[in-house]
Amino acid sequence: MNRQLLLAKRPTGRVDNTTLELVERPIPEPGDGQVVIRNLLLSLDPTNRVWMNEADSYLPAVELGAVMRGIAAGRVVASRANGFAEGDLVSGVTGWCDYAAIDASQVNKIPPGVPLSAALSVFGHIGLTAYFGLLEVGAPKKGETVLVSGAAGATGSLVGQIAKLQGCRVVGTAGGPDKCAWLQDLGFDGAIDYKSAELNEAVASACPNGIDVFFDNVGGPILDVALGHLALRGRVVLCGGISQYNASEPKGPAGYLNLIPKRGRMEGFIVLDYLARAPEAIGPLATWVQQGKLRYKVDIVDGLEQAPSALNRLFDGKNDGKLLVRIAEDEAAR
Amino acid sequence: MNRQLLLAKRPTGRVDNTTLELVERPIPEPGDGQVVIRNLLLSLDPTNRVWMNEADSYLPAVELGAVMRGIAAGRVVASRANGFAEGDLVSGVTGWCDYAAIDASQVNKIPPGVPLSAALSVFGHIGLTAYFGLLEVGAPKKGETVLVSGAAGATGSLVGQIAKLQGCRVVGTAGGPDKCAWLQDLGFDGAIDYKSAELNEAVASACPNGIDVFFDNVGGPILDVALGHLALRGRVVLCGGISQYNASEPKGPAGYLNLIPKRGRMEGFIVLDYLARAPEAIGPLATWVQQGKLRYKVDIVDGLEQAPSALNRLFDGKNDGKLLVRIAEDEAAR
Repeated sequence: MNRQLLLAKRPTGRVDNTTLELVERPIPEPGDGQVVIRNLLLSLDPTNRVWMNEADSYLPAVELGAVMRGIAAGRVVASRANGFAEGDLVSGVTGWCDYAAIDASQVNKIPPGVPLSAALSVFGHIGLTAYFGLLEVGAPKKGETVLVSGAAGATGSLVGQIAKLQGCRVVGTAGGPDKCAWLQDLGFDGAIDYKSAELNEAVASACPNGIDVFFDNVGGPILDVALGHLALRGRVVLCGGISQYNASEPKGPAGYLNLIPKRGRMEGFIVLDYLARAPEAIGPLATWVQQGKLRYKVDIVDGLEQAPSALNRLFDGKNDGKLLVRIAEDEAAR
Repeated sequence: MNRQLLLAKRPTGRVDNTTLELVERPIPEPGDGQVVIRNLLLSLDPTNRVWMNEADSYLPAVELGAVMRGIAAGRVVASRANGFAEGDLVSGVTGWCDYAAIDASQVNKIPPGVPLSAALSVFGHIGLTAYFGLLEVGAPKKGETVLVSGAAGATGSLVGQIAKLQGCRVVGTAGGPDKCAWLQDLGFDGAIDYKSAELNEAVASACPNGIDVFFDNVGGPILDVALGHLALRGRVVLCGGISQYNASEPKGPAGYLNLIPKRGRMEGFIVLDYLARAPEAIGPLATWVQQGKLRYKVDIVDGLEQAPSALNRLFDGKNDGKLLVRIAEDEAAR
């Protein structure tokens, strides 16, 4: 059978056990040009929460009663598409389910030797987000100071390391001493524990020349503080605002006015716009990973039925690396 | 004698009659390379209020006990600088006073035939702010929708008209039916009375294709609403935030998160950065004014001693055109 998690109710605040409904449906047959994928690893991302809202975002809202949207990696179990055969490992937006029939044009083959967990993190949407968000939107120059929020997260940890590889001074914020220790281990020049630090003083001390690029995954207080310490012509890269996604009344950064005297820029981006340029990023990302210069961690939860509660771990900062759900046992699902 | 308004106390909130102190001092003598200027017209700008704060902004904070900083136009009454003679009309940052000695390199001669009121508005810092802020930072393209807040103000009214001259659809917000009628008269495609309209509905209705460029002089609720209606790759030009300058706890725009799905940009600028390029702007501005395609109004208050209370009129929206203070009767001070 094919277990599916359907969006049953739009959450106000956190996802709870009424948000999604687990149903069993028949395994689909492939239509013309389609493949059927047996999902093996599911990526949980803060954006999943945004997709549950009634309002459309950069993608339409998930409809009530529809399979929850999600990026996953899996194995082709049936194909009516040229170039795809049973057993191929692929990734795509297949959803929170065991099996999905999907147009082959919408999936990517995972190259031999690449772990599925890497395909869903450093070599997938996460790596592309970090690479293009930092280098294209933030455009840091050698010697500049880069601050990253959510720096121990899947995206943030890559952003910081890539910024170091550009010759930047890099400071990250994260929750708790263990995460901060990991940032030091990754080569960050500074790590701020937002749970214990007085943020304004800590940022001032860690970024004495101001912040040239702030890569923000979090929003809330750190965004305000970072704006207050922006260097002349500083850039704020808006990647996400995880601190606000569950909020009934999201808060804006009062410090935005500092963009005026600092001639600063705050800019949002979506990784979808860079998919066509993926090879530009995958080349250097793969080289850095092979050379040991770019490290990543994955945090795998077992069982599709765990996806809703696991999603909340992102908002609690409880995940330790890229959060994935193992949907099926398979030698590739590591 | 030389009356001067000194910053006596940093205001919390509005300027009051304890903020500035009127003193009489001797008329200064010019140092080497200096001119002494008899101020005739003083420009009052929202940024004056920012300069009174303790924190430095794009310029250092005015020190307590110092002459309040301000832009003025006046007549040279003594010169020890090459190229400047008694009687020359000039503008510069001479301050809230009758007379100022200032390095000649810091003043600009006002060309013959240009009224001082024009030199302090459409052909001065206001015109340059509107021209470069809109065209360089906002970069509107023909057919795009431009929303301007504070659109009946000195800067906003020029921004809207320049945007029309670029072939844009232009909507402005202003306070009250008279100001809105003036916007219609200037050729705006839409005018929203922020005091009576339900802002979100009014903006949605006036900008059915979303906002490509939002030129913001105001901040507060209109910034939030505009962010919510941003078109794909929309640009927010941060020129000012007059609604927040007197606030003890300025508010940030919760809608900033919409910059992410819309791939939007919010950017601040300061006209000082464009002074070297002034001729680029003055040419077209002068042509448009001569052709009757660019109109401006001035609102002149009499008496230097009125400057503090007049400044509050900006924050009450009580001024009707570029707010100026006539410091001395002079045939040029019109």
